[in-house]
Amino acid sequence: MPRPTTCTTLAEAVEGVQDGATVIIPGFGGAGTPWNLLTALYEQGATGLTLVMNSIQSVTNDTRVKGVSDLVDAGRVKKVIASFTAATHPSRISRGEQMVRDGLMAAELVPQGTLAERIRAGGAGIPAFYTPAGVGTLLASGKEHREFEGETYVLEEGIFADYALVRAWKADTAGNLVFRHAGRNYNPIAAMAARHVLVEVEEPIVEAGELDPDEIHTPGIYVERLVPILPHGVLRVERGTLPTTPTAAPSHEAPATGSGKRRLTRAEMAAVIAQRMQPGWIANLGIGIPTQASDFVDFDAGITLTSENGVIGYSRLAKPGMGDPDIVNAGGQQVDIVPGASFVHHADSFGLVRSGRLDVTVLGAYEAAADGSFANWRLSDAPWDNLGGIGGAMDLVARAKQIWLAMEHATRDGKPRLLDRCTLPVTSPRGVTLIVTDIAVIAVQGGRFLLEEHAPGYTAAEIASLTGAPLDISPVLREVSV
Amino acid sequence: MPRPTTCTTLAEAVEGVQDGATVIIPGFGGAGTPWNLLTALYEQGATGLTLVMNSIQSVTNDTRVKGVSDLVDAGRVKKVIASFTAATHPSRISRGEQMVRDGLMAAELVPQGTLAERIRAGGAGIPAFYTPAGVGTLLASGKEHREFEGETYVLEEGIFADYALVRAWKADTAGNLVFRHAGRNYNPIAAMAARHVLVEVEEPIVEAGELDPDEIHTPGIYVERLVPILPHGVLRVERGTLPTTPTAAPSHEAPATGSGKRRLTRAEMAAVIAQRMQPGWIANLGIGIPTQASDFVDFDAGITLTSENGVIGYSRLAKPGMGDPDIVNAGGQQVDIVPGASFVHHADSFGLVRSGRLDVTVLGAYEAAADGSFANWRLSDAPWDNLGGIGGAMDLVARAKQIWLAMEHATRDGKPRLLDRCTLPVTSPRGVTLIVTDIAVIAVQGGRFLLEEHAPGYTAAEIASLTGAPLDISPVLREVSV
Repeated sequence: MPRPTTCTTLAEAVEGVQDGATVIIPGFGGAGTPWNLLTALYEQGATGLTLVMNSIQSVTNDTRVKGVSDLVDAGRVKKVIASFTAATHPSRISRGEQMVRDGLMAAELVPQGTLAERIRAGGAGIPAFYTPAGVGTLLASGKEHREFEGETYVLEEGIFADYALVRAWKADTAGNLVFRHAGRNYNPIAAMAARHVLVEVEEPIVEAGELDPDEIHTPGIYVERLVPILPHGVLRVERGTLPTTPTAAPSHEAPATGSGKRRLTRAEMAAVIAQRMQPGWIANLGIGIPTQASDFVDFDAGITLTSENGVIGYSRLAKPGMGDPDIVNAGGQQVDIVPGASFVHHADSFGLVRSGRLDVTVLGAYEAAADGSFANWRLSDAPWDNLGGIGGAMDLVARAKQIWLAMEHATRDGKPRLLDRCTLPVTSPRGVTLIVTDIAVIAVQGGRFLLEEHAPGYTAAEIASLTGAPLDISPVLREVSV
Repeated sequence: MPRPTTCTTLAEAVEGVQDGATVIIPGFGGAGTPWNLLTALYEQGATGLTLVMNSIQSVTNDTRVKGVSDLVDAGRVKKVIASFTAATHPSRISRGEQMVRDGLMAAELVPQGTLAERIRAGGAGIPAFYTPAGVGTLLASGKEHREFEGETYVLEEGIFADYALVRAWKADTAGNLVFRHAGRNYNPIAAMAARHVLVEVEEPIVEAGELDPDEIHTPGIYVERLVPILPHGVLRVERGTLPTTPTAAPSHEAPATGSGKRRLTRAEMAAVIAQRMQPGWIANLGIGIPTQASDFVDFDAGITLTSENGVIGYSRLAKPGMGDPDIVNAGGQQVDIVPGASFVHHADSFGLVRSGRLDVTVLGAYEAAADGSFANWRLSDAPWDNLGGIGGAMDLVARAKQIWLAMEHATRDGKPRLLDRCTLPVTSPRGVTLIVTDIAVIAVQGGRFLLEEHAPGYTAAEIASLTGAPLDISPVLREVSV
């Protein structure tokens, strides 16, 4: 086997990365991120870079360790291609976001599953493919549309980069790699999709032949350089890479304002979501309130939770200090897994999503409309500047059998978030069937809202007055019971 | 986790497969073929089937066991989609081939990498993609062509089937699967690309949680039914599924016909090929003479051999009785592996091919021309009827840095096989750089043949007289030395 170079220092591993290079950087929720190579790249000095990764917001609490944000903030990045190019809340504008607005950095916002598939395609010699993700939204504008068997898809092109910075768990001297749990995420596809693959390795590098050939995730022929993380690097950096929730969710958690009348807490909303799931379902929970539902799901009923980063079969949030930094949910929170759980890479994870295996996807939202549309990735209706935080939402909604939302019923100043039509750019132009808010549970069907449950103390009239579209009342309207 | 059904009999595992169903059948060279489920399907009786698999020629020596050929021969198949739809030699016409000619069965001949990618795409919710395989050949006729960055590609559509019959090594009660060595091949992508995934399992099925989540190849959520092969089935059936060599290679292996003058044997031709490989190269050896080169390659020079079925890093042919039926080369022959070898599934294997990682692909051929074209998949120039044996050749030639051929210099009746232009449908319209024949080694450059080596006793004039195009003579012409 051709032997990759085993470097002794991190600096040696990133030697020669030229100005203007395109670099793929895996990592999701702090797991599988090549923190040490990123730090070495920061110190190496290359500039004018194009970075391809999940989110431009990748920082740590450890001042020795640099993330994507540090490269961006230092003005070393010419362009970012990511599924989160901006903080989702206008009050938390990142330096990178401001640079995009000021014309100092280019940005390309890509649905997360499309991003993973574009990397996988580039690595597989496929120049372009069609995907349903984003159809009917601003992110598909200007893209070529085409119908196959009556469904509409958009054309997306493969990505093949100059460099991939990869984080592996185990490696051998032939360059074969094994990833750990959800640390796998983008790593195997990044290793396929770059001319130069540089790998930081957690465990001591073993001789070729010592890894079981059947458990190798990435064949060594893709790898150019290996570097053991220790003794010069930092093994674990647990601060995640994900932005805070894209859900404008209730931060007030108000106590009862009058006898028996209070809004539902996030946990109660999450419990309602879990309650509605049917035995045997496969469900995906988005960042924010939806991920909290994992604490209420009845796993004995055979419900399987998948996370877009490739965790299939997770369960509750891990107890503080008891979690594994390589097992995280869509929000980057540490979770437990069920017996029979497995891990796949990011492209396979979204393959599962797009091929229609999900019974339900549950997402946060800023707005939802009676036509089944909703908006959750951009709070601005300013001219399109490629800023926003779409994550995997557009992939998830493209083929899930049902779309549910968990959201605030109204803004802090009382403006309805449930509307006739969305005012913000939509995530999907259709498909929502259920909305769980802090005061109500509402079905969406036939272009109308139907009130099915109310928070304790809230009347249908009160809920209707906070709803921006006609609200039908279920004949079996009941109080939320969780 | 949702539990798949664990069946107690093979008959139960295929219950309900309806007439007219589309069924994907993995397997390559006898490894990873679901022989027991095929046998059960044969007995179950469903007819009017559309079968998707590598080759329609899949038979065994074990009369208890049925293969694809048995279903075809029994008239149970409406259509085959395969990379081998016919025997490659007119003297070995299969029943299936005759049925296609007689209009009793439809056939769709697909380059092997395209077939794998179409299955993977179907499983990943991708309706269509562009690939370079087949451009400039009969197999691209009628397909939509398109340029990306100056290269031409054809549009291919995803395949999503009603059923996949899968052969796994290990499984747990949650349906998680692990495949064994090159038995992996089409199995993981087949499991993604069907509504109903039926799995025969070699080892006893263990409880969910007993398999290491990081070594699971296929997540259980794809699986509908599991059936242990034993006690009712047959564990190993080592007869391969591949047709005999597509190379019209010297079967005569003639002894010396005059002093010091004889044609090179297949082994000698293979040795010449190995001799020409450079240290550190990644090489793919096609069925026939090329695969024999593995016995002569200098593995200490860091040459890596890959096989289209996903074996990365194989070495010599296994000694008789010492091989592993799950480690086979492109011709289905058992081979050894080097330390540091690994296995990938069929789509990843061809991803590696199409993304330009191969330094050389070596193939058999019927004809080669001075313009760098060659023909190796169809001996007939009869009207196009979708019959032929293309295997992975069109994928391999699309992006390999070099294309080498190993072939007979002339037909048995002395007609040249090296021509100005090919008369048979081409495998590639360009790109051949070296041809090793039974009497000469010839470089192809600038639209001309250049004689570099001659078999012992053969003069340049004799070789030129057996060559159907002008033959330049190298100033350093030398005798083959192997």
